[in-house]
Amino acid sequence: MTTTAGTAPAPSGSSETAEAPVALLSALAEKTTAVRYEDLDDHARRLVRTAFADTLGVALAGADFAGITAIRTAAGITPAETGSLVLGTADRVPALDAGLLNGVAAHALDLDDGNSAMGGHPSALLVPALLALGEETDATAADIAVAYTAGYEVMIRLAYGLNPGHYQRGWHPTATLGVIGVAAAAARLLGLSAERTATAMAVAVSHAAGVKANFGTMTKSLHVGQAVRNGIFAARLAEAGSTANPGALDHHQGFLPLYQGASGYDASRIVAGLDGPPLACSERNPIKIYPCCHSTHGAIEAARVIRGTDGFDADSVEDIEIVVDPNRMPHTDRPVLTEALSGKFSVQYVTSRALLTGSVVLADFDGDAHRDPATLALMSKVRVRPAPRGGTPNSFAATIRITQAGGSEFTATREPYLPDNDATVDPPVLWEKFADCAGRVLPAERVAALSDALRGFPAARTGVRELARLAEVHPRTDREVTS
Amino acid sequence: MTTTAGTAPAPSGSSETAEAPVALLSALAEKTTAVRYEDLDDHARRLVRTAFADTLGVALAGADFAGITAIRTAAGITPAETGSLVLGTADRVPALDAGLLNGVAAHALDLDDGNSAMGGHPSALLVPALLALGEETDATAADIAVAYTAGYEVMIRLAYGLNPGHYQRGWHPTATLGVIGVAAAAARLLGLSAERTATAMAVAVSHAAGVKANFGTMTKSLHVGQAVRNGIFAARLAEAGSTANPGALDHHQGFLPLYQGASGYDASRIVAGLDGPPLACSERNPIKIYPCCHSTHGAIEAARVIRGTDGFDADSVEDIEIVVDPNRMPHTDRPVLTEALSGKFSVQYVTSRALLTGSVVLADFDGDAHRDPATLALMSKVRVRPAPRGGTPNSFAATIRITQAGGSEFTATREPYLPDNDATVDPPVLWEKFADCAGRVLPAERVAALSDALRGFPAARTGVRELARLAEVHPRTDREVTS
Repeated sequence: MTTTAGTAPAPSGSSETAEAPVALLSALAEKTTAVRYEDLDDHARRLVRTAFADTLGVALAGADFAGITAIRTAAGITPAETGSLVLGTADRVPALDAGLLNGVAAHALDLDDGNSAMGGHPSALLVPALLALGEETDATAADIAVAYTAGYEVMIRLAYGLNPGHYQRGWHPTATLGVIGVAAAAARLLGLSAERTATAMAVAVSHAAGVKANFGTMTKSLHVGQAVRNGIFAARLAEAGSTANPGALDHHQGFLPLYQGASGYDASRIVAGLDGPPLACSERNPIKIYPCCHSTHGAIEAARVIRGTDGFDADSVEDIEIVVDPNRMPHTDRPVLTEALSGKFSVQYVTSRALLTGSVVLADFDGDAHRDPATLALMSKVRVRPAPRGGTPNSFAATIRITQAGGSEFTATREPYLPDNDATVDPPVLWEKFADCAGRVLPAERVAALSDALRGFPAARTGVRELARLAEVHPRTDREVTS
Repeated sequence: MTTTAGTAPAPSGSSETAEAPVALLSALAEKTTAVRYEDLDDHARRLVRTAFADTLGVALAGADFAGITAIRTAAGITPAETGSLVLGTADRVPALDAGLLNGVAAHALDLDDGNSAMGGHPSALLVPALLALGEETDATAADIAVAYTAGYEVMIRLAYGLNPGHYQRGWHPTATLGVIGVAAAAARLLGLSAERTATAMAVAVSHAAGVKANFGTMTKSLHVGQAVRNGIFAARLAEAGSTANPGALDHHQGFLPLYQGASGYDASRIVAGLDGPPLACSERNPIKIYPCCHSTHGAIEAARVIRGTDGFDADSVEDIEIVVDPNRMPHTDRPVLTEALSGKFSVQYVTSRALLTGSVVLADFDGDAHRDPATLALMSKVRVRPAPRGGTPNSFAATIRITQAGGSEFTATREPYLPDNDATVDPPVLWEKFADCAGRVLPAERVAALSDALRGFPAARTGVRELARLAEVHPRTDREVTS
């Protein structure tokens, strides 16, 4: 630490080493270690069930994302006899690598659930992490429900203390906060003590990374895969006896001041109400319908309304004005696309697709979809404007005003529809979306079996190994050749 | 080219995604891609040779660090038939894992070379990365010399723009800047284009992590190992076709504003003089002689002078006063040791060892070394005092005043001796240190062979595979049992 010439040392009296406050991580570790299955009420159990069903479906659909092949090649990941399932295949690989690949798959389509406090996607981290580690440890559904709850508690509480600033500044909270939450979830599944759990999270602090400058590229979903991998790794390092500073969050050279600035966070909000029920009993994870940035969903809904209006004719459109909250613009006002994937962050693109086809689907972000002439023609007519400040702060609503040749005008304003686990019945879209996503790689009978297993989750006796077996994707066998 | 200090807020209509300035990474990529072996002058070749000899020795000595066993267990790393050497063994594992383990080994002893501009340790990253990737790709010494130069250029230039603030704030520059430099070095070894090299560095930006709050724990050297692993991974991802934002450094939600604050850096210094010779032709990497905190080295040198003075008798010492810059005291004024390892940060301990034995060596931090009665007796006579402010700011010099029974007094003031590659002859300590370090795990004849191979580096024809073969550590065979 003091080995290098020319670096100023810590101010007199302070220390650059481990002697520091340890309150935050230790308090979080006590909480996550203490949570029991009986602490999960109906809301929490439905949240966990929805998270697993939605994320597993989305990850299966995302498993053939081009970035995953590149990652598997680049990391030199090869099948291992014992190990955990790589979604989209029947291969087993070491749990850390399965977490990496499945974490990328879960986030690659921008279709995974989210949490507004987090400004991110808790299940894209926790579900792949717990499936990978759970298969290795032969966990029950109840085991991983508890571990999900533990990791969720940590990532949401960190967000309470750091957001919205952490997100706005340019960090990718799904990765930076997520890696610490995965460490807690993995530690819970491994049955570590509170002291070892705090160490696991402290190791994870030293892996927090992911800049929004890389949004719109394959590196965005890599952030999530690496956070899953490194979170599991951190828990296993703590289990194996590694050391870290349990004060790594609140130390003066720790996570909070470094990732947020000395005055950009409120540590008291991280631990407020820690004696109460787990946050999974009250928080919500809206699930997504469209495979693109949530900030564009209001415009998609408004475009669908206009498309269904009598007299609307996409061929006659002369002008499209989209008015959105100013917070939505920096990442979605993208008039020109460099690749189909970047369409996920272009309100111009997704609005044009919705006006032309009535929806926005996975195929809109594949191959050369972004070069479709009719779409380009409509996109060229779009102007994006910020709504006046003073309405609902940070709204996701959008207004579209369209002028057609001949003077007809169409206007619609919509909030995005994002069903969540607060409903007393399943979100209607949940199992349809699951079947649509899983059906991209699995035969119908397997989709049905997996769906049945997930419907009973986490109360049913289905263990993680059985779930993984049902999710295997085998190359089609050409029976006529072999018989 | 964007060379303005600080980052202006994003102009209206800008995006959080990939359309952003791309000047810095692209400019660095052009430079690192263009460097050729012929561009390396004598200074640069000696810098590379010293880096490889010093780091390989230090990493061999560090290979039995307890943290490495924990990492190998936690990550589930097992030998693979093809792959790269894990130092301290004869095992081959996938190159990314070899980079991880050997990066930790290179930094674990606090004995690796440093660079004052970087505020960190360039060779602990670059040497393990290039040995691992070089063995896989069957690289020549010249190949890896060029790749070292490329990665070095990037990490030192980043430091020019960000330090001293980046270090002082609490980041671990060896890891945060290092991962980007490793990506450049690995890209150069893989022969990637400038465009792919910029992508590799952009991927690496999303892996920059490591907080100084974890200094003084096993996680500190883990930072280095992970930076090596992730830097190689980033280059391979770029090779495999992954995408990232080449503007990830200077984007308004990229590395510079996020890791340094909007006004904490000078981007122009990152690219200044890029048309000139590689920085390896002018920069220096002082190598460490004593395996302990740099802040104690002045006192060790002064103690050695006194020990060599006529009339000095360690048994007759009555009082030892050590006067050091106040900046040296917070982390090295440690009169009582809890374990031998903590002696690395005790000026009382290392001064007493130097007075008794004439030097400070690795064995002084092993096992029960800190319980040696003669050492404890001398330590009890030491008083550490701050030098008056007003001399050289942040000096590493120390003055020792010793009073002996009978009234004799001895005084010496010394600056630490940190030889570097600027000497026209080898630092006298280089090969002694190499033999001491490598000799901890290798038999004498292997130390000599490896030493010979490194002396001719990088001009000699020795390839990396031959170097790795010489560095293998085999368990001792008990011939009498088997014959």
